[in-house]
Amino acid sequence: MDLLSALQALRTGEKTPLDLLEEALERARAYQDRNALVYLDEEAARAEAEALTEELRRGQARGPLHGIPLTVKDLFPVKGMPTRAGTRAPLPPLPEEAAAVKRLREAGALLFAKANMHEIALGITGEITATGPVLNALDPGRQAGGSSSGSAVAVALGIGLASLGSDTGGSIRIPAAFNGVVGFKPSYGRVSLEGALPLSRSTDHAGPIARSVRDAHLLTEILAGESIPLEAPQNPTFGVPVDFLEGRLGREVRKAFQRLLEDLPRLRAEVREVSLPLSGAYEVYTRLVRYEAARIHEKALKEAPDLFSPPVREALLAGLTLTEKEYRDAVAERETLRLELMKALRGVDALLLPAQPLPAPPLGTEEVELESGRKSHREAFITLTLPFSLLGVPTLALPFARVEGLPVGLQVVGPYAEDGRVLAIGGWLEERLR
Amino acid sequence: MDLLSALQALRTGEKTPLDLLEEALERARAYQDRNALVYLDEEAARAEAEALTEELRRGQARGPLHGIPLTVKDLFPVKGMPTRAGTRAPLPPLPEEAAAVKRLREAGALLFAKANMHEIALGITGEITATGPVLNALDPGRQAGGSSSGSAVAVALGIGLASLGSDTGGSIRIPAAFNGVVGFKPSYGRVSLEGALPLSRSTDHAGPIARSVRDAHLLTEILAGESIPLEAPQNPTFGVPVDFLEGRLGREVRKAFQRLLEDLPRLRAEVREVSLPLSGAYEVYTRLVRYEAARIHEKALKEAPDLFSPPVREALLAGLTLTEKEYRDAVAERETLRLELMKALRGVDALLLPAQPLPAPPLGTEEVELESGRKSHREAFITLTLPFSLLGVPTLALPFARVEGLPVGLQVVGPYAEDGRVLAIGGWLEERLR
Repeated sequence: MDLLSALQALRTGEKTPLDLLEEALERARAYQDRNALVYLDEEAARAEAEALTEELRRGQARGPLHGIPLTVKDLFPVKGMPTRAGTRAPLPPLPEEAAAVKRLREAGALLFAKANMHEIALGITGEITATGPVLNALDPGRQAGGSSSGSAVAVALGIGLASLGSDTGGSIRIPAAFNGVVGFKPSYGRVSLEGALPLSRSTDHAGPIARSVRDAHLLTEILAGESIPLEAPQNPTFGVPVDFLEGRLGREVRKAFQRLLEDLPRLRAEVREVSLPLSGAYEVYTRLVRYEAARIHEKALKEAPDLFSPPVREALLAGLTLTEKEYRDAVAERETLRLELMKALRGVDALLLPAQPLPAPPLGTEEVELESGRKSHREAFITLTLPFSLLGVPTLALPFARVEGLPVGLQVVGPYAEDGRVLAIGGWLEERLR
Repeated sequence: MDLLSALQALRTGEKTPLDLLEEALERARAYQDRNALVYLDEEAARAEAEALTEELRRGQARGPLHGIPLTVKDLFPVKGMPTRAGTRAPLPPLPEEAAAVKRLREAGALLFAKANMHEIALGITGEITATGPVLNALDPGRQAGGSSSGSAVAVALGIGLASLGSDTGGSIRIPAAFNGVVGFKPSYGRVSLEGALPLSRSTDHAGPIARSVRDAHLLTEILAGESIPLEAPQNPTFGVPVDFLEGRLGREVRKAFQRLLEDLPRLRAEVREVSLPLSGAYEVYTRLVRYEAARIHEKALKEAPDLFSPPVREALLAGLTLTEKEYRDAVAERETLRLELMKALRGVDALLLPAQPLPAPPLGTEEVELESGRKSHREAFITLTLPFSLLGVPTLALPFARVEGLPVGLQVVGPYAEDGRVLAIGGWLEERLR
């Protein structure tokens, strides 16, 4: 059941907000081993669900999400809940509630739990949190992906109908892809990050993780506070960045992607090869984000470095040793990369590429085997997702195939501000991939 | 005579490279009072012109600009010429020749002089240089505009057929508009700034100042080292950012622009009102550029501050006192502004707005009168041009009307990477505005 079906069930009276919450709580108990949630006050949630149920009975609705149970990634403050961002280290001061959370609350959503996440959002495995690894929804021996790890696992397991996540280099798209759900990273700036714990202010995005593209669309409109018309081309033209993908996939994902490309013309879509010379993006991204992240956490890093887990501390310390000149250079280099992406997007409706080179790896994986040889886990995975958050363009991840019995995600990338087009094309694909 | 006509004259043998140079030198002598050039070695230029003439006689051409006399803004190093960038202060180390200059040289251009410029490119009047003010081509009692002041004045007066300029907040478009010629600021990154003196590396653009849109197109292709197909819509749709222009024009430029908008439908163009809420751009731009500029000139600023003119020194010192956090914030804020611009560009072929609120003001003008009251010169002028360099989108300035007998420029703004569309639309407009 996706969020829109749940709204329908609320409308017909088939379900109440309390029913939806009880289902979510039941699933949370059943899958407690996954470590997807970090804060859940069942009594408070029930009281709120009862109020929402009562209001609905009287014909009152707070907004379009009235009574829908959602989780929130633990770097967005939610009134009445602690914010820990996956770390034991002290966080910089945060307000009582983030702007995006307020939007959901005002729409009537029942924000019933905080979702676990990779420590301070600086990592993509979901294995490093203050409370141990988050486990994959479909196979607890595998990674959940990150950093919005608990958000994706919760959505995949029906612990709430959707989740608010954030994405700086792939943190919505990677866990969504690992757990077989939909993740949408809107255009930079579309959804406010005011009040959220930043990782890299110039690269952070907030967006939904959901059970369907249409859910992601509705949530994005609510989070953005504006209508985002779905604008689907009749017969979409997809650009495939062949050079960019060269050597960067695992063999099985390559095959699955190839099959998709062969199917598309039969579905009346056109597939075109485009050039996306963004090899430099990984280094520019790493420099820029580590530099900004180190300054966000500078105080804690100096006063209580041992409270960070070693890999996160190391990455932050690396950011701290970068010079301000190296940062300024990265800022300029990002602008240069932008033109290459925009050239690739000319003349096509969207770019299409896998969201991951391999299915979710087993816990503890540090290196993986790609067509081009062994790579570090981080480089192998984040390389496919980071260009589109570094450059701020709307990007959707949705499941498109199974490899080794596990879901694999596809990215749909559009030009700046064309969120409606990306979501429309995503819906078009979702329908045909079923 | 524009550059393409000159190429035609060279082809038919009607003129030789030496003829073209002699004409340029004669004009330079006739208009010496304008102070457009800072370096000219007539003998060396003649020797080079003779070599180019001899090669052409033998049927040899170095490239598509063979024998065309051009000037180069004095922040691009040219082999055999000094680089002073309009200042008496020492410059950071620069290579022998900038990459963009090499492209022109390899295309066979005769780079015969360095063009004067506003000190270190940090200013838009052209009044502050190491050798006194550059004077407007059409009225020596008025400003030339800047910072590519000498480039635009030289092109307007026929001292060479075009010039290589640079634009960080309007430095190609403002002087082009003040002097009645064409200036094109390509997409960020389209033309390399390698080897040029930076002002703000993340915001600097190189581009041509020329006598026609077609000349600007040819020069951009050569500078970029790639073909840029002209892609004109049949009946262009123009977006006019009415809210952005509110109160920001002088009365006479408003009237001229209004007349243009009324004419466009008769020319089979559609005009649509769009919203461009970029009031924040001026402050973000100023913070970002001053911060970066202060770091470029930090050494000179500390060791020999008195060698900068007082207003430039003040702006640099203001940049030096900005904190690294204020810079990082500006970097993130720029990303937020980008979405607003991209939304405005959706559904139209280009934005249309004046390049200046008033015709070139008299020398010494510090404040001007706009619809909304008195404003500082800098804010009044640069506000209209800076959003499009801050955000890296291709923008053309071309003359569109006369006010008080002086030319006034129009900006055509397109989405990232759509340089060919902007130039095609510019050509369409140029033809109809004649």
